Amino acid sequence: MPYFDTASAAPLHPVAREALLAALDEGWADPARLYREGRRARLLLDAARETAAEAVGCRPDELVFTPSGTVALHSAVAGAMAGRRRTGRHVVVSAVEHSAVLHAAEAYDATTVGVDRTGRLSPADLAAALRPDTALACVQSANHEVGTLQPVAEAADVCRAAGVPLLVDAAQSLAWGPAEGGWSLLAGSAHKWGGPPGVGLLAVRKGTRFAPAHPADERESGRSPGFPNLPAVVAAAASLRAVRARAAEEAARLSALVDLVRTRVPRLVPDTEVVGHATERLPHLVTFSCLYVDGEALLGALDRAGFSVSSGSSCTSSTLTPSHVLKAMGVLSEGNIRVSLPPGTSRAEVERFLDVLPSVVAEVRAHLGAPTSPGPAPEPAADLVVDSLGKRCPIPVIELAKVIDRVPVGGTVTVLSDDEAAALDIPAWCTMRSQDYLGPRPAPKGTAYVVRRRT
Amino acid sequence: MPYFDTASAAPLHPVAREALLAALDEGWADPARLYREGRRARLLLDAARETAAEAVGCRPDELVFTPSGTVALHSAVAGAMAGRRRTGRHVVVSAVEHSAVLHAAEAYDATTVGVDRTGRLSPADLAAALRPDTALACVQSANHEVGTLQPVAEAADVCRAAGVPLLVDAAQSLAWGPAEGGWSLLAGSAHKWGGPPGVGLLAVRKGTRFAPAHPADERESGRSPGFPNLPAVVAAAASLRAVRARAAEEAARLSALVDLVRTRVPRLVPDTEVVGHATERLPHLVTFSCLYVDGEALLGALDRAGFSVSSGSSCTSSTLTPSHVLKAMGVLSEGNIRVSLPPGTSRAEVERFLDVLPSVVAEVRAHLGAPTSPGPAPEPAADLVVDSLGKRCPIPVIELAKVIDRVPVGGTVTVLSDDEAAALDIPAWCTMRSQDYLGPRPAPKGTAYVVRRRT
Repeated sequence: MPYFDTASAAPLHPVAREALLAALDEGWADPARLYREGRRARLLLDAARETAAEAVGCRPDELVFTPSGTVALHSAVAGAMAGRRRTGRHVVVSAVEHSAVLHAAEAYDATTVGVDRTGRLSPADLAAALRPDTALACVQSANHEVGTLQPVAEAADVCRAAGVPLLVDAAQSLAWGPAEGGWSLLAGSAHKWGGPPGVGLLAVRKGTRFAPAHPADERESGRSPGFPNLPAVVAAAASLRAVRARAAEEAARLSALVDLVRTRVPRLVPDTEVVGHATERLPHLVTFSCLYVDGEALLGALDRAGFSVSSGSSCTSSTLTPSHVLKAMGVLSEGNIRVSLPPGTSRAEVERFLDVLPSVVAEVRAHLGAPTSPGPAPEPAADLVVDSLGKRCPIPVIELAKVIDRVPVGGTVTVLSDDEAAALDIPAWCTMRSQDYLGPRPAPKGTAYVVRRRT
Repeated sequence: MPYFDTASAAPLHPVAREALLAALDEGWADPARLYREGRRARLLLDAARETAAEAVGCRPDELVFTPSGTVALHSAVAGAMAGRRRTGRHVVVSAVEHSAVLHAAEAYDATTVGVDRTGRLSPADLAAALRPDTALACVQSANHEVGTLQPVAEAADVCRAAGVPLLVDAAQSLAWGPAEGGWSLLAGSAHKWGGPPGVGLLAVRKGTRFAPAHPADERESGRSPGFPNLPAVVAAAASLRAVRARAAEEAARLSALVDLVRTRVPRLVPDTEVVGHATERLPHLVTFSCLYVDGEALLGALDRAGFSVSSGSSCTSSTLTPSHVLKAMGVLSEGNIRVSLPPGTSRAEVERFLDVLPSVVAEVRAHLGAPTSPGPAPEPAADLVVDSLGKRCPIPVIELAKVIDRVPVGGTVTVLSDDEAAALDIPAWCTMRSQDYLGPRPAPKGTAYVVRRRT
């Protein structure tokens, strides 16, 4: 049963399991104690820190272990902002950062830097957003939803020139290699690389102003309060070293499988858009969106077919809003599927996924009454209004697609919708179908999305 | 090799180990995902929450898992204070709370309620400290250093009458039973009961105002950010149920062993004070202090003799200050030893400890040149000044003890000391030796501690 959601959580690496079991026996005591059990625990903690620091590319005394990647990011933002509070309360974030960074930034004066349609940040845009009162900039190494790599080395140069520390969220990329460039702070998450949950990394380079924002605590250089989760920390470090040892080989192998998906899906499944950068990307992750498909139904159908994947579609989020990443990229969000391959995924598993996908998508589309071929053209109307109020993604787009042939070239279809995903998906549909999107207009209820038939 | 520091960290309970291994295989995925691995993880998380809630004595939806007991306490204080910010910024804490509570309270207007010589808080003193702008009161269920139980049920009544929520730090007592009384918030720590590290509990009763003080995050009802440490959570819940099933029996057994220590130590080792309440106490924990002994040397000697214990003496802390608990109780801090017995400790192990202790203490005292018997009395002086400036615990007390016989009854010895432990240990020595402590007086350097010979 292939599990293709390793970007969310990876199954425990065998090396992590072995290290965890050993450390449960040897490393349960308090490493701050002076008796033999404490000294043993201290040795394990020191060794884990050295291993992790080597993989991160920093000094052991620059790295602390936190309870999760999320907490590492929260602490990094709060600690860096407090450390530079005299400079100001301005923070710059890319629009595609993990929600942990975006939510942490909400406490300050935050500027969001947009990305292009591939999800990539421009260092020039970052430079333009920096101000004299900017205390911190945050750029991820690679995006968690679409796999696009960010130019972190250039971002670090831009920040250094402006005297602003750069926080790199390296959660998605640490398995593959250290983050490039002269970052000041870095965060990671062990369960993304096959380590156990309960372990994050926070590295703060010497010379970076940092003032922990939590109550005083002696643990982890005062940067991560609470009793250290030592057995998990040991397992995290051991598995990071193990995945790194095979990273180059596995990256090449998985990247070829991802290319297979990127090339085949648009051929096998009509009306599909592969999103994210084609080459500047993580080796193991590919995301695509399927028109006229309900993401939740698609997830369910794929699950029944034996495939575990995730989605950034609005219908799969608790807030019924599309993923902020897809929104920032301006790409289709409906029928969105993220495939992230765990190490060891075989070509046969990916082939099986590609075999199953077309019929699964077709079934969901049929169930929703999506247009499959140009319908019979009843009496043409010059302009049409489709009332999709109260209907959720992907229905507004389906209703638009069903009537576009009923207006003459040059005529318009106006879709009335109060679903947030429509703002993203109707323009995306226009791009995919070479129709003209005339923009959203105010309407008495919801929003009027106006499309002019071009072809 | 007996490990007698279970109040610091307990070795992993066999049930926890078994549950952890099973959950590593079944519960590594994201419980928020809808595919089969996610659903399995969700079931495990829900079951763990029910088990833990039953042990705590609350509803499952009132309980969240945190990365540690420390983080649970930090979140409890910050969340309760933010939830009641309109009431005020005043918080009341007992003087013997865990440092995690005391440090969290530092961010607010904090009033500290003292304890008696046994370490016990008086509900009347708590009542007197509550004000109209008091947003929270914090009382531990049992003290982590001396084992004294606090009257939490009475404290909860006092708080309820004043309309103030009570946070109970139940970290030391949850293994033995639920906290009594109508608390509003409760925190616990799994590695104190034989669960794995990396898991704390935070319970917030329905109706308690609570506003999480960290960046927004959907996990754990918004009260504990970050990917849940599910395998450890499952292990924590399973082991809590397991230790509770044998709690009554084990409490009776260990309590008898503690009574043995409490009775025997003062007989076996001269100049020793057993601290903490004799009956209102944890079943497995006993603490005593030995005059004229350096705590660090004593820990080291006991470690070499095969016993792992901890100490609240100043010389064993990174800040060279005595434990705030011993300070609040006003008891001797030098040569302090905490013995906390893990479940399953045998009488033979405790007997062996009692066999070894007298010679270990005698050795350390001999090494420090401590007085063993009344020395020869040279020409008596009416009043003496001992210059102990620059000397650390237990030297100032040793020097006092060595000269007290040289002044006549009614004469004074003034000890000049700049060691913080002297403020605690010189009065404690006077109490133990029936001498009159006339109090600290300002001195050009350090403090002058004046003792009048009574006997």
